[in-house]
Amino acid sequence: MTMTAQDTDALWMQRALELAGGVMNITSPNPRVGCVIVRDGRVLGEGATQRAGGPHAEVCALRDAAARGEDPAGSTFYVSLEPCSHHGRTPPCVDALIDARPARVVIAMLDPNPLVGGQGLARLRAAGIHVKVGVGLETALAQNVGFVARMVRKTPWLWLKLAGSLDGRSALHNGVSQWITGAAAREHGHRFRARACAVLTGVGTVLSDNPQLTPRGVDAQRIPYKIVLDTQLRTPPYARIFDEGEVWIVTASENAERTARLADRGARIVRLGEAHAGIDLKALTRWLGAQNLNEIHVEAGATLNGAFMREGVVDELVTYIAPMLLGDAAPMVRLPALDSLPASREFTFTGVEPVGEDLMLRARRPASWAPLLAAVQGERQS
Amino acid sequence: MTMTAQDTDALWMQRALELAGGVMNITSPNPRVGCVIVRDGRVLGEGATQRAGGPHAEVCALRDAAARGEDPAGSTFYVSLEPCSHHGRTPPCVDALIDARPARVVIAMLDPNPLVGGQGLARLRAAGIHVKVGVGLETALAQNVGFVARMVRKTPWLWLKLAGSLDGRSALHNGVSQWITGAAAREHGHRFRARACAVLTGVGTVLSDNPQLTPRGVDAQRIPYKIVLDTQLRTPPYARIFDEGEVWIVTASENAERTARLADRGARIVRLGEAHAGIDLKALTRWLGAQNLNEIHVEAGATLNGAFMREGVVDELVTYIAPMLLGDAAPMVRLPALDSLPASREFTFTGVEPVGEDLMLRARRPASWAPLLAAVQGERQS
Repeated sequence: MTMTAQDTDALWMQRALELAGGVMNITSPNPRVGCVIVRDGRVLGEGATQRAGGPHAEVCALRDAAARGEDPAGSTFYVSLEPCSHHGRTPPCVDALIDARPARVVIAMLDPNPLVGGQGLARLRAAGIHVKVGVGLETALAQNVGFVARMVRKTPWLWLKLAGSLDGRSALHNGVSQWITGAAAREHGHRFRARACAVLTGVGTVLSDNPQLTPRGVDAQRIPYKIVLDTQLRTPPYARIFDEGEVWIVTASENAERTARLADRGARIVRLGEAHAGIDLKALTRWLGAQNLNEIHVEAGATLNGAFMREGVVDELVTYIAPMLLGDAAPMVRLPALDSLPASREFTFTGVEPVGEDLMLRARRPASWAPLLAAVQGERQS
Repeated sequence: MTMTAQDTDALWMQRALELAGGVMNITSPNPRVGCVIVRDGRVLGEGATQRAGGPHAEVCALRDAAARGEDPAGSTFYVSLEPCSHHGRTPPCVDALIDARPARVVIAMLDPNPLVGGQGLARLRAAGIHVKVGVGLETALAQNVGFVARMVRKTPWLWLKLAGSLDGRSALHNGVSQWITGAAAREHGHRFRARACAVLTGVGTVLSDNPQLTPRGVDAQRIPYKIVLDTQLRTPPYARIFDEGEVWIVTASENAERTARLADRGARIVRLGEAHAGIDLKALTRWLGAQNLNEIHVEAGATLNGAFMREGVVDELVTYIAPMLLGDAAPMVRLPALDSLPASREFTFTGVEPVGEDLMLRARRPASWAPLLAAVQGERQS
């Protein structure tokens, strides 16, 4: 086997994507980006985007190169997102890149922001730097699917975290659910909480399980917002969700006393919908996008899961399956009976992973994914 | 990387197991066995067991070597089952092996027959041949799990073939089930029919779906027995199961007229149980073992699936899962509500495979597997 130039690019980009994978729980609402500077098969510097307001991946990699006493002139930069060309909280990365005089820049995906996408590319090319786009595209998009969703369609990427038996039951009829899936699956689920901008549940789950909704047992770095859908403001002020982190309560109630009691506990109370109609979930996702949230982790009961499904706002299913049959027991998702099967499938499986004694199955809505991919794929790869 | 002698043995045994994998649908009630004769890194001959009454793997491999003009003296035989030492329908393979004067024989698993297990081994050693046991053990057992089950516990290995949505629904409430899982999954399921000694269903499925129960779209070689559990003898004589192959109807009815009508169609009618009590499924599995059946493929409705589960006679679950949520719809398996979860898990996942747009999940009862493994593992591997 001989390594082609394409293989080499794929391997170095893989390292850049690994670096981005290391900051999944840090950068939001900014994207997770990794950068590796390579010359003659040797790493001169590498880095990943830090907390919002901190340096971007390219600048981190340049600083790393400087710390190693390396001059990046004539090198290749592997960067998992198109370098930014506009002044945000930090100066444009593309200027720093051009100053470094690399020979090539290899980019996984374009900036999905329709106002600036492609401009970084154009600036690099205008400076005489060879640019290649699309190496590691799907992995880069998967790492930043929420950021891209917010940029492209103004709503976050939303997944349901489900757990149940091989026949889709999440609890016995008497409520016993501890534990159908095992400890490893529960811990694994916290990785998804940790990367999300918000963990969302319904007041029913707060009342019955009194969960903390924090990511635990993972290097979480920050606590995602906790969002409770609570039409009637029934969330008890002594619930454990208030123990740490920031709580948002989305309601359709105007009850002043309950509002005041929950506001006293530090909760942000948001009214979205009329008391008689309940919370409009489509409006909710638009509102969440407007709050700069990229990824929403829904961990709720069967009724709220079903409501999200019926509204068509679920982009992904993250399902932990235990190798058991439970028969007559509570469902993972409550949906009304259908009279016919849908003509086309709404989801496709994208991965399976053994987690302890259980399996994690991921499935994604192609109708959600395709427009995001189109927005960041830029030119066709040669 | 250097190849150790153990790696080499594993690789050649893998070839023997591949050969055995090629005769999965042929050999029953005999085991599937492959044999490769190797000297100085070169194959001298190879073969696999043929139809019952035909030559065993070792003899096929020796004939292949002879046809190639090779003398197996001083070679290593890789064979996935201990060579037989008794006169059955064919002379003992161990005699043919000793006559061939190999230096070594590497065996995946011992003969599970408690009367002869280990005797082939002893004969080979007495002839001065070096013997190693246990290379490729679990794969060899998986290929012959039904044969080993019948030898060790006198009952066949029984699996349920299930298919449904991610939330465990096999059909809509109006009966629509075409199709939740896709065409690839249906075809894949025929591989399991083809390897089984019998395909078993309930009369409810015969009445509602009128299935053929034959393996189609696979190199089936023979039609497994079709077994219908039919307490009241309600199977229509014009059902499609009678189109080809042999039909056994297991009943608790003594209705002479219905018996005669079905016997006229060539069915074998078997009474197992009292009319008032129905068919005893534990007695059924013992009876199936006594009929020399190794593997039973159950493809039935939710009620019969549930009955097999409750009797504890299910050794394996072969489940095809489609990436969809159906909510309020018919279950894959009907089981009564539990008040508590079992203290230990009855099944463990053993594999996952993408099949078209669906996933196949296999789960096995460790309590079924462990005694079979113990029966064939022989000496510990060094």
